[in-house]
Amino acid sequence: MKTILILGAGLSSNSLIHFLEKEAAERGVQKDGRESWQIVLGDRDKELAESKAGRDTRIFACNIDQPGPIEREVSRASLVISMLPARFHPRVAELCLRHGVSLFTASYESDEIKKLDDEAREKGVLLLNEMGLDPGLDHMSAMQIIERIRAEGHELTGFESFTGGLVAPESDDNPWHYKFTWNPTNVVLAGWPGPARFIQCGKMKYIPYNRLFRRIEYMDIEGFGRFEGYANRDSLKYITKYSLEGIPTIYRGTLRRPGFSKAWDIFVQLGATDNSYIMENSEELTHREFINSFLYYHPRDSVEVKLYRAFHIDQDSPVIEMLEWLGIFSDEKVGLQNATPAQILESILVKKWTLKPDDKDMVVMWHKFNYTDCMTGQEKILTSSMGVTGEDRTHTAMAKTVGLPLGMASRLYLDGKLPLAGAYIPTVREIYDPVLEELKSYGITFREQEQA
Amino acid sequence: MKTILILGAGLSSNSLIHFLEKEAAERGVQKDGRESWQIVLGDRDKELAESKAGRDTRIFACNIDQPGPIEREVSRASLVISMLPARFHPRVAELCLRHGVSLFTASYESDEIKKLDDEAREKGVLLLNEMGLDPGLDHMSAMQIIERIRAEGHELTGFESFTGGLVAPESDDNPWHYKFTWNPTNVVLAGWPGPARFIQCGKMKYIPYNRLFRRIEYMDIEGFGRFEGYANRDSLKYITKYSLEGIPTIYRGTLRRPGFSKAWDIFVQLGATDNSYIMENSEELTHREFINSFLYYHPRDSVEVKLYRAFHIDQDSPVIEMLEWLGIFSDEKVGLQNATPAQILESILVKKWTLKPDDKDMVVMWHKFNYTDCMTGQEKILTSSMGVTGEDRTHTAMAKTVGLPLGMASRLYLDGKLPLAGAYIPTVREIYDPVLEELKSYGITFREQEQA
Repeated sequence: MKTILILGAGLSSNSLIHFLEKEAAERGVQKDGRESWQIVLGDRDKELAESKAGRDTRIFACNIDQPGPIEREVSRASLVISMLPARFHPRVAELCLRHGVSLFTASYESDEIKKLDDEAREKGVLLLNEMGLDPGLDHMSAMQIIERIRAEGHELTGFESFTGGLVAPESDDNPWHYKFTWNPTNVVLAGWPGPARFIQCGKMKYIPYNRLFRRIEYMDIEGFGRFEGYANRDSLKYITKYSLEGIPTIYRGTLRRPGFSKAWDIFVQLGATDNSYIMENSEELTHREFINSFLYYHPRDSVEVKLYRAFHIDQDSPVIEMLEWLGIFSDEKVGLQNATPAQILESILVKKWTLKPDDKDMVVMWHKFNYTDCMTGQEKILTSSMGVTGEDRTHTAMAKTVGLPLGMASRLYLDGKLPLAGAYIPTVREIYDPVLEELKSYGITFREQEQA
Repeated sequence: MKTILILGAGLSSNSLIHFLEKEAAERGVQKDGRESWQIVLGDRDKELAESKAGRDTRIFACNIDQPGPIEREVSRASLVISMLPARFHPRVAELCLRHGVSLFTASYESDEIKKLDDEAREKGVLLLNEMGLDPGLDHMSAMQIIERIRAEGHELTGFESFTGGLVAPESDDNPWHYKFTWNPTNVVLAGWPGPARFIQCGKMKYIPYNRLFRRIEYMDIEGFGRFEGYANRDSLKYITKYSLEGIPTIYRGTLRRPGFSKAWDIFVQLGATDNSYIMENSEELTHREFINSFLYYHPRDSVEVKLYRAFHIDQDSPVIEMLEWLGIFSDEKVGLQNATPAQILESILVKKWTLKPDDKDMVVMWHKFNYTDCMTGQEKILTSSMGVTGEDRTHTAMAKTVGLPLGMASRLYLDGKLPLAGAYIPTVREIYDPVLEELKSYGITFREQEQA
C-alpha cells in the first residue's frame, strides 16, 4: 500500500484531493492488481481538512512550526504533496530528504529547492515543483510544441505565452469582466514594483511598472473570445527553463478581457497599488477618502471630477463605469489598521470581485511560436490555446488546472512511471507527454492553429 | 587658542574653509582680545586638502576606517565640523562625545545622532546638525517668520517652502535651464521611489513617483524670475521640527525653471530613473540603445519617433529640443559596468549638465505662510524669498550657502555665544537670529511680501 501525504487543504487543493480520493477508491474496490492507496490530509485547521476529505482519508493537524507530527507523517509516506504557502516548501523538502520521500508542489522552484538537487539525486528523491497551472500546464503545453518544432529541424525565433484566471462569460456581471479566482494580493501587486523584462527581436526590453498596463497585446482564443495581455515580471528566466538560449523573442504575460488594463492603470497611476508604506489613519478612511488622498486638493471639485480630470478620462469613457461600479467613491469605511495603499485597494476590490457560490471561473492559456521552416525557409507562426470553465465557486477551473496535473503526476510516480531523481519542473517529456494526454479526458485540450 | 577641526575638503567645504581661515587670519593679526584660532583640515585625499587650505591651516590625512589619527585630532579640538558623507557622522559623533568636543554638520540629523541627545547634554556637548542650506538656511529663515507670526498672536494655517540649486541666468546655455550644482545622484533619484507626502487643508495627500513631476506649482522670485516646484519626499517631518502640530497645510518642495519637470517626467515614465536593478550588458549600451530598451519594438520606426509617440509629445513641443540637447539619442557608449538605469542616466547627464569653470550657479529659496490675522480675522499670505548667485565653479552659491551658516555658527559657539548642549538643529532663536543677521552682509537676504 502507498501512502500519499497532502499538506494544506485550502481552495487550490480541492481538485487534487478529489482526483486522488477517486483513484484511491477505485483501487480499493477493483482489486485489479493496482496498489491500494491511503491518503493523509494535513492542515493547520483540522475542521477545514475534515470538510474537504472523504471517508477513507485520514486527517491530521499540521503546524509547520511544530514539525514533529509532520515529520512522523512524512516518514511513513510514499509521496508528499505540499499545497502550503511556497515559503514553507524548503522546510518540508528537508524532512522529505531526511526520510527519502519525494515531494511535489505547484509552486515556483526556489533557489533553496534548487540547491537540494544533488542531495535528492543521491537519495533517489524526486523534488517536482511547478506542477500546477502557471507554473505547470504552461511549461508542459509549451515544451511539447517546442520539442516537436525542434525535432522537425525548424529554428524557433520567438515564443510568447499568456495565462489568465478570470470569470466565465455566464457568470460575468461586471464591467471589468473579472473576479478574483486566485490570491487577491498577488493580483493587486501584479508587476509591482517592476520592471517587466523580456526580449524582442534580439533587444532587451524593460517596461517600468507605470507603463505596464499601457503596453498590451490582443489575442483571440477560439470559443473563449478576445483577450488582452500585459507582460509578466521576468520572461528571461524561461530561457534556461526551456533551453531557449539565443532566442530572439521571448515574452510571457497575463490575460485579461479587453479594457481591464486601461482601467487598472488608473489605480497604478494614482499610487493605489503601492505596497511600500503605511497610510496615515487608514482605519478611519472611507473608500472615497482613500482615492482622494492621491488627488490634488480642490475646495469644491468632487473626487470623481478630480480623478477624471487628472487622468484625462472622457465623460463617455468606459473607465468611468468600471471605477464607479467598484464603489471606490463610496463613503464606506476601509476599516483596516496600519494598511498600505495596496492592502486598502484589495479590501475594496474583494467586496466586488468575489465569486458568488454558483459563479463559474475560467482559465485561459495562449502560446505563440515563431519559427523558420527548415525546408522552405518560410517564417511560420503557430498558436496553441486552451480554455477551461469551472463548475462553481468550490470546483473552480483554477483548482482543476492546478490539481489535476499534480494528481496525474503523483499517480505516474507511484506507479513507477516517473523514474526521476533530483529537482525537476515538468519540462521533461516523461512528465508532460502522459499528463497532457490524460488532461484531454478532462476537457483540458490545446487547439493549435498554423499561420503562413 | 581654539582649534577647529574640519573633516572633509570636498566641493561643499570651499566657502566654509575660506570663511574660517579669513576669521583666523584677522584674529592672528589684530590681537584685539579675540581668541586666536588654529584650523586643522582632514581629508582622505591629502593633496586635495592641501590645495584647499591656506598657509596657516594644518593638514592631515584622515581615513574614517582608521579612526586613530582622527581621534587624536578630535581630542585636541575645540570644535569639529564634519563635511564627510552623512553616513560617517555617527562615528565622528561618538569620538566627539568621548572627548567632550562639539560637532557641527550640514547633514540631516539622523536617528542615530538623535539618540545621543541625552549623553551630549550630560557632557555639555553641542551636536548641531542641518546647519547648511537645505537643511539649514531653510529652517532658520522659516522659523524666524513663524515665531514672529506666533508672537503677534496670529494663527498659522499654511506653510510651504521650496529650495532649488540651479545655474544662474548668465551661465544658462541649455534648454533645461539647469546644471548640476550638487550631488548628481541625488538629483537623478529625487523623489524615487516615492511617494511624496504632505498635508493640504487638513487632508493627507500622497503623490506617487510617477505623478510627482506632473503636479507642480509656480512661483516668482523677485530679481530671479519664474520657477516651478515639485513636492519633496516627506513634508510631515517638518511638523515636529517646526512645532507646527495641527497645521492644516504643509508642503515642501524643490525649485526648477518652468518646463524642467515636464521634460524630466519623460525619464520617469520611461523607467530611466529606476535604481533597483542592473541592466543587462550595460557597458556595451549606447545612449540610444539605453533609451530604446524602454520603448516598444518596431522594425522601422526610429527611437526618436517611438519615444515621441509613446508619450504623445507633439512635434513642436519644447520637450523635443530638451531631450535631443542632452544627447540621449547619440551612439556614444555608456561604458558603465553592471549599472542601474539611474546610474546610466546620470552618466549621460553629467556630460551635459556640468558647470564650466566660469559658470555661475544660483540658489533660490521661497517660503509661503498663510495665517489668520488675530485682530481682523482676515486670511493673510506672506511670502519670503531669497536668491544668491555664485562666482564660478569653485566658489558656488551652493558652497557659500552651505558653508557660511556653518562658519557663522562655529564662530558664535567658539566665542561662547551658543550656550547649548544636546542635539540641535537651527530652529532655535539663539542660532537663527545672529546667523540670519550676519548673512545679510554677504548678500543673503530674504525679501518679504505681504498679500491681502
